[in-house]
Amino acid sequence: MKFCSHCGSADIALRIPPGDSLPRFVCGACDAIHYENPKIVVGCLPVWEDRVLLCKRAIEPRLGRWTLPAGFLENGETLQAGAMRETLEEANARVELLPLYALISLPQIAQVYMMFRARLLDLDFGPGPESLEVELFDEADIPWEEIAFRTIARTLRRFFLDRRLGAFGLHVSALERRPPLTPDLVAAG
Amino acid sequence: MKFCSHCGSADIALRIPPGDSLPRFVCGACDAIHYENPKIVVGCLPVWEDRVLLCKRAIEPRLGRWTLPAGFLENGETLQAGAMRETLEEANARVELLPLYALISLPQIAQVYMMFRARLLDLDFGPGPESLEVELFDEADIPWEEIAFRTIARTLRRFFLDRRLGAFGLHVSALERRPPLTPDLVAAG
Repeated sequence: MKFCSHCGSADIALRIPPGDSLPRFVCGACDAIHYENPKIVVGCLPVWEDRVLLCKRAIEPRLGRWTLPAGFLENGETLQAGAMRETLEEANARVELLPLYALISLPQIAQVYMMFRARLLDLDFGPGPESLEVELFDEADIPWEEIAFRTIARTLRRFFLDRRLGAFGLHVSALERRPPLTPDLVAAG
Repeated sequence: MKFCSHCGSADIALRIPPGDSLPRFVCGACDAIHYENPKIVVGCLPVWEDRVLLCKRAIEPRLGRWTLPAGFLENGETLQAGAMRETLEEANARVELLPLYALISLPQIAQVYMMFRARLLDLDFGPGPESLEVELFDEADIPWEEIAFRTIARTLRRFFLDRRLGAFGLHVSALERRPPLTPDLVAAG
């Protein structure tokens, strides 16, 4: 933020407003406080018989890598509406949503992932503009080395484990950015 | 948004960017697209023996009405950290968080409420700067007519019902704004 979106002034500074405890973008000209808050990424894990639907990304970040249909929740949407819209946009797929399955906080990038389990309603799916391919994968064929995001890998791993155990709960977790390894740790393997 | 926060131009218009499907604030000078997304309100329902902790609001909206400790999730926070921070700020109370309990989409105001159940750790609590009073209430004494928000009333009602049934799940729901009654419906009572 370089200019105040209320008054256009360039007198923007990060400082803690009176009565607040965190630095915000504050306008020195009109005193507007510009809050920034985490975004919700909503999506689903669509299943057809034993297989899971994945989309190969046609856009950055992680172009060419595989992911579950998911994207930013929009103003005016419920969580379920957002998950179904993203599935339609990225995979042209219609799903029946099942219970919320994974809720993952990503504090370093100010996102919260919210993934529902889902039942794919038919096989009439295909890549939308943000996907290169859309495919159903058996567990044994999941391209684990080419999954786009750690949230998605975690959600898929947990799903296959729970499926074997026969019980799906809600999994609430967090992913912190991996700290860089110090040379000593790298040397130690 | 009246001015572009990237370049300061006043040439801001709501229009659908190429490849998008929703209107966004777009800058005619530098082409920056300013997305707006729903915010997460995170909080908890702190319990001590049979009683529930409520805070009387010292700020608008709904000054003087009762609520559970909750507020906007901040960048850099996990959901749990946010719920505990809000509880400390509004009620000076320390809690052990229990499983996520209520998740309520509010599409018309672009918010998603996420409330954990919680166990109050001690009785050393009291009003923070945003609260006038903090009190423990038995179910019979809950001031239902003075609850600040519908999300909070829904969460509390559900909690007392589940407690009687002996099982707490996760409740995912949505609150749409009540449509104004047409004169015919008003007349019909």
